[in-house]
Amino acid sequence: MADISTQFQTWYTRRTGLVIDPKSLIGKHEPDAFPDAELAWNFLFTPGFFRTVPVMKDSQHIIAELNKKYEVFIVSAAMEFPQSLPEKIDWLKEHFVFISWKQIVFCGSKSVIKGDCMIDDYVRNLEPFDGEKLLYTAPHNQLIEWHDRVNNWQEVGERLLL
Amino acid sequence: MADISTQFQTWYTRRTGLVIDPKSLIGKHEPDAFPDAELAWNFLFTPGFFRTVPVMKDSQHIIAELNKKYEVFIVSAAMEFPQSLPEKIDWLKEHFVFISWKQIVFCGSKSVIKGDCMIDDYVRNLEPFDGEKLLYTAPHNQLIEWHDRVNNWQEVGERLLL
Repeated sequence: MADISTQFQTWYTRRTGLVIDPKSLIGKHEPDAFPDAELAWNFLFTPGFFRTVPVMKDSQHIIAELNKKYEVFIVSAAMEFPQSLPEKIDWLKEHFVFISWKQIVFCGSKSVIKGDCMIDDYVRNLEPFDGEKLLYTAPHNQLIEWHDRVNNWQEVGERLLL
Repeated sequence: MADISTQFQTWYTRRTGLVIDPKSLIGKHEPDAFPDAELAWNFLFTPGFFRTVPVMKDSQHIIAELNKKYEVFIVSAAMEFPQSLPEKIDWLKEHFVFISWKQIVFCGSKSVIKGDCMIDDYVRNLEPFDGEKLLYTAPHNQLIEWHDRVNNWQEVGERLLL
């Protein structure tokens, strides 16, 4: 739902003037993909970074529909970046008004989460999960082989709403 | 681990001068147990309330031992009070230095949590859990019948460490 990769590119260009070729991000953990990896890594601790992340295309109306049909939880591995927590709550309040505080989970490790279906862009989050595991395509995971992928929110809708 | 009931009494006395009989809290949700319930309820949104909660007797060394024997997660239903999130992280860092950010979970509802054993003072948190469910005695739950109670951290140690 949050397009972190685009946010990294936008902030990097704003700080350095360099425009990053999106292809150069493929298969790499975001901060490491940039010429100055430390600068990019520090974005994660900078006030405003998470608060202003762009919303992914179609995520709002697809998640609104999922929320009518299923018990939806927004689970964010946020604990490494404490200042991001209130920013993520405010971001959700702004862009996903139909998600109540009861549906939000912040954790360090997602291994403690149970449910029927998890959509995530990290294999390390999906692996310990007991239910259906959909890998949401992001530049960093494009080279990973995974049995079940979704490439955009339209595809999530086709999988879970029809 | 956090003695919220004592914190409510301390803050209430500090604000009003009234000393509350602990027996008057039995069987009641904390804010409702105080003569001025709105004042007590507002503590939950006041900076510093969660940051300065007293640590329960024996919780530090018992949880340190549990942490050696088991995979421990600290799961806090914190999402209703967003300002409490960074305060709770700082509180854990100060009093439970052996707990890493990877072991912390903040949620609105604990129904999304899986594990082998949950210790909690609210039946509503224990009920949807699939594993062993230990009700940790607190004034508000003393009148509730429950099959499996622990009254203090020593008893938790006797149950899970021997």
